[in-house]
Amino acid sequence: MEAVQSSVDMIWMMIGAILVFFMHAGFAMVETGFTRSKNTVNILMKNLLTVSLGSLLYFIIGFAIMFGPSAFGLIGTEGFALLGREDIGFFVFQAVFAATCATIISGAVAERMKLSSYLILVVAMTGVIYPIVGHWVWGGGWLAELGYIDFAGSSVVHLTGAVGALIAAWLIGPRIGKYSGHSVNVIPGHSVPLGALGVFILWLGWFGFNGGSTLAADPTLVPLVIANTLLAASAAVLSTALYTKLRYKRIDASLTLNGALSGLVGITAGCANVSLIGAIAIGLVSGVLMTESIRFFDVKARIDDPVGAISVHGIAGIWGTLAVGLFDVANGAFYGGGVSVITIQFIGVAAIIGWTTLTVGGSLLTIRLFTSLRVSKEDETIGLDYSEHGTQAYVLQDVFKGAEPRSNDFAHRLTQLGKSVEAK
Amino acid sequence: MEAVQSSVDMIWMMIGAILVFFMHAGFAMVETGFTRSKNTVNILMKNLLTVSLGSLLYFIIGFAIMFGPSAFGLIGTEGFALLGREDIGFFVFQAVFAATCATIISGAVAERMKLSSYLILVVAMTGVIYPIVGHWVWGGGWLAELGYIDFAGSSVVHLTGAVGALIAAWLIGPRIGKYSGHSVNVIPGHSVPLGALGVFILWLGWFGFNGGSTLAADPTLVPLVIANTLLAASAAVLSTALYTKLRYKRIDASLTLNGALSGLVGITAGCANVSLIGAIAIGLVSGVLMTESIRFFDVKARIDDPVGAISVHGIAGIWGTLAVGLFDVANGAFYGGGVSVITIQFIGVAAIIGWTTLTVGGSLLTIRLFTSLRVSKEDETIGLDYSEHGTQAYVLQDVFKGAEPRSNDFAHRLTQLGKSVEAK
Amino acid sequence: MEAVQSSVDMIWMMIGAILVFFMHAGFAMVETGFTRSKNTVNILMKNLLTVSLGSLLYFIIGFAIMFGPSAFGLIGTEGFALLGREDIGFFVFQAVFAATCATIISGAVAERMKLSSYLILVVAMTGVIYPIVGHWVWGGGWLAELGYIDFAGSSVVHLTGAVGALIAAWLIGPRIGKYSGHSVNVIPGHSVPLGALGVFILWLGWFGFNGGSTLAADPTLVPLVIANTLLAASAAVLSTALYTKLRYKRIDASLTLNGALSGLVGITAGCANVSLIGAIAIGLVSGVLMTESIRFFDVKARIDDPVGAISVHGIAGIWGTLAVGLFDVANGAFYGGGVSVITIQFIGVAAIIGWTTLTVGGSLLTIRLFTSLRVSKEDETIGLDYSEHGTQAYVLQDVFKGAEPRSNDFAHRLTQLGKSVEAK
Repeated sequence: MEAVQSSVDMIWMMIGAILVFFMHAGFAMVETGFTRSKNTVNILMKNLLTVSLGSLLYFIIGFAIMFGPSAFGLIGTEGFALLGREDIGFFVFQAVFAATCATIISGAVAERMKLSSYLILVVAMTGVIYPIVGHWVWGGGWLAELGYIDFAGSSVVHLTGAVGALIAAWLIGPRIGKYSGHSVNVIPGHSVPLGALGVFILWLGWFGFNGGSTLAADPTLVPLVIANTLLAASAAVLSTALYTKLRYKRIDASLTLNGALSGLVGITAGCANVSLIGAIAIGLVSGVLMTESIRFFDVKARIDDPVGAISVHGIAGIWGTLAVGLFDVANGAFYGGGVSVITIQFIGVAAIIGWTTLTVGGSLLTIRLFTSLRVSKEDETIGLDYSEHGTQAYVLQDVFKGAEPRSNDFAHRLTQLGKSVEAK
Repeated sequence: MEAVQSSVDMIWMMIGAILVFFMHAGFAMVETGFTRSKNTVNILMKNLLTVSLGSLLYFIIGFAIMFGPSAFGLIGTEGFALLGREDIGFFVFQAVFAATCATIISGAVAERMKLSSYLILVVAMTGVIYPIVGHWVWGGGWLAELGYIDFAGSSVVHLTGAVGALIAAWLIGPRIGKYSGHSVNVIPGHSVPLGALGVFILWLGWFGFNGGSTLAADPTLVPLVIANTLLAASAAVLSTALYTKLRYKRIDASLTLNGALSGLVGITAGCANVSLIGAIAIGLVSGVLMTESIRFFDVKARIDDPVGAISVHGIAGIWGTLAVGLFDVANGAFYGGGVSVITIQFIGVAAIIGWTTLTVGGSLLTIRLFTSLRVSKEDETIGLDYSEHGTQAYVLQDVFKGAEPRSNDFAHRLTQLGKSVEAK
Repeated sequence: MEAVQSSVDMIWMMIGAILVFFMHAGFAMVETGFTRSKNTVNILMKNLLTVSLGSLLYFIIGFAIMFGPSAFGLIGTEGFALLGREDIGFFVFQAVFAATCATIISGAVAERMKLSSYLILVVAMTGVIYPIVGHWVWGGGWLAELGYIDFAGSSVVHLTGAVGALIAAWLIGPRIGKYSGHSVNVIPGHSVPLGALGVFILWLGWFGFNGGSTLAADPTLVPLVIANTLLAASAAVLSTALYTKLRYKRIDASLTLNGALSGLVGITAGCANVSLIGAIAIGLVSGVLMTESIRFFDVKARIDDPVGAISVHGIAGIWGTLAVGLFDVANGAFYGGGVSVITIQFIGVAAIIGWTTLTVGGSLLTIRLFTSLRVSKEDETIGLDYSEHGTQAYVLQDVFKGAEPRSNDFAHRLTQLGKSVEAK
């Protein structure tokens, strides 16, 4: 019977891993949709290479650092290339997580960061920087000992990725034309449908991200996690839509799409610890915080983040992690548990921010000693699809403009048109 | 051992829920692809908001009305916000169903219905109208008592949604330019690839919709349901392709795509009750019925339904529900069961049509007392992306036109071109 | 307890089937993205019709030929339309495989093959040609008896499809304009994002393709298969990216996307038999082989294969099948097993190539007796969307060109613009 149970647990974890893998398609589509068409091939390549390089690096180094026997609660020390380990299923699930953390950065540095420099950062992130954070929280490290709660990674994955995104976007600087004198310019993305598709795919994948983090097909816990994920994201969509309607007089599409993601990031830490009502509350706040944060970074801090990754993954990540201190049904402040949990959560968040700032900053400055972090002005103006890949994303022929209603014999006329075109 | 079995059943239901959730991406893509690019952002927002608002409403009100203790077989009365209930997994699965029912309407009223009025209708649908139908059939209500068969919702979900779509499309009226005098004009959608992607995603999700409706990982029933779903949809694609070839001298792409959906809707009621051959028969008929129905509503009834939702979900939904009376291997007419089953099926279909017509009609007329149902003529002409969201779906740069074959040094020349563009 | 285990095994196989079904969306998107926009509707229809027609044919004929009681180890003889069989779950899983094999051809003959002739070939492939190969290897036929190893189908599915693709592309000839005199021209595809989305979807589906081929939720085997699939594809992405960087001075996007697929094809045969390191090695080689193969077929052999299907599925398929002879941890040459395995693998590959060449060639020549294999020159020039379906894939209105950064009051100005447009 234990064998059967282990079958069930294993397939649930594999389903989780498969869904988290698919989140990379979601990231690719969101980042493609929210950036310009001249940088589309490049952002797609960055996403594809991130999951590929990240999986390999995590296999060779990362997994051992994260889940190997601990040295001082700081770092794992054994199991490189899975030597001596049998838990391949657990490895796969963790590998696609690691790549997720790294790919968050690609959105924030889109349209200007050099592909080669970005890939070196991916190596550092998936091989060392993220696995060490992971070791602290999930590998039996010092934050785990302290009682820090981050069930599926609001901070471990999303905040780590977002701090990396912030440091990188800041060091690399804004895209050409983003800030001119006092004015802050909008650089619209090129395809809302691709962005929206990406959000739906990410939401789908998140059921595996949070649900799979149970690591077992627990018939009580898993449904709670899935329901919390659904309701928090729904609440965040709603709060973002309403808030943008109040603040900007219309339901802003790209913010509302990011709203869904902010709710998902927000519930990730507490998805197994809070009630359904708690999840809704966390989601409602996530959307509003993210909306104001995007404005802050864009207008006040003047950090150019094309897809809003810093706010979506970072601010909602911090909120979600701290919110466990409030909404945890066992020990949260709102359930009479006082400030003990939230204090620990603060410590963890601060530690993750500090570590990631230091290491990502260090990595980027080191890379800059040997090569540049961003492409040349000429290449940026032409677009990275030309300059890095010698190609372009779209070649559209015969696309009708201004299609107004047409009479029903359209198909016939189209054929005639075709014939006459051909006759020339 | 019971614990293990409940683990298995639970993860199967969660997988079902996750797949049904993803159907919302499918609906979003189908509706986006089949409408004009000036209304793309709006239809994406409608779909995203439907699943979000719908999930929350169903949590607060809908689930209790649908599955709470019955009052007179008509309506559930307890369990609001899941108070006193433990079956969170079952709730999640049902919540994504409820949102599906509502989103069917968004396609039929696309390109002209006001976002705010639409959202009020979503509240009514997911909070009350659909849950009451659901109570009758799946919540132990009067149709369940009668022996009405609708395994996964050809009528409960799809017909309910389609009747809502019909009433709404009729009350709101056709898009500007659709009908001019005697002529019926074609308003082509803007992206067949997005439409096709949506159909594939919906088909994928439908395996969860029908398969998950078993509510348990029954090793005999589930494979039958999955096989019936595959074969019915395949048969409907084939019959639609052949029928349009005969009727219109070519395989019509948008009808054939809708053919897949019609087969899926058609098999939904009987997917656990009919044989594989029965499923193929149901699918074959679904495609032809849907094709003729689209023509009827478009040309004869002059009801403007941009995506064909009324025919796909309504006509195939009625057919599928009645077909159980013919093909049910236990009591169907073709298996010597006489007309007893089909009679009950007729009663159920009539009751659902009556109830939905009344309540959706009532809701819309009430909304119209306070605000308009559709946007102004100016806003419709500009497009709802501008008028409701102040944005646009696409911004394409550097897209080549009329790309003909190019010699192999294309990449080189492109780089040169880039340089010279930049030099200007 | 056996009942519970059979539940678990069944849902794992159903999840596999569902994921493999979704690969058809992946094929559709890859083939759409890598071909021209004037043939988009046609390629989408070909993919949709392949999975539909293929599933039905496999139900009626194919499954019996593949898994019925064997006549001389060559062909199955019973179970047409599943008569007398109970293993419906197994059938579904196999049915979506069969359709996969056929759809590989559609990419290689894209933009010129007549829809009706293509569909007849699909009938032959899914009804007879592929099931006989399948019978030899998986149905207890002569190759199974010999000890031939192809766990999930590098040769059974992918090589069979690719040989069909090669014969068809060769018999039908290149697209107009592909070769002019000595020069080999590039005909760029129309949408890299759709192509990339397709690759991600295929990769997702492949976890079901390989993972589901275990046919049971074995808690040791399944994680190995999933991990091997992830790592081999990742390695192939990396090797393709690096190799194209070295050879063409840039990371080529479409080759790197195909790199992922080549790694997936490569690992398919041995995914349950090789170690994680073995999987990485197989993937690394797959990418490089595929890259050189694409060049060979394009430039030397002058076989026009718009999406690279022959190299991705054929060359990587052969490599993956032979590699089992090297990397099999039980009997591979690198593990001291000598050349016995690889010799058998060679025999199997040769038999599959011979059989498929003969039967696909025979089928196509027979079709050509009654009708043409490709559309007329006029129709090809106009595009198959017009000529076969009387429609077009895209209708874009109001798409901004050359969108440069805009000041923040853009939305306001857009509204003004809208108003003035409407006023005219």
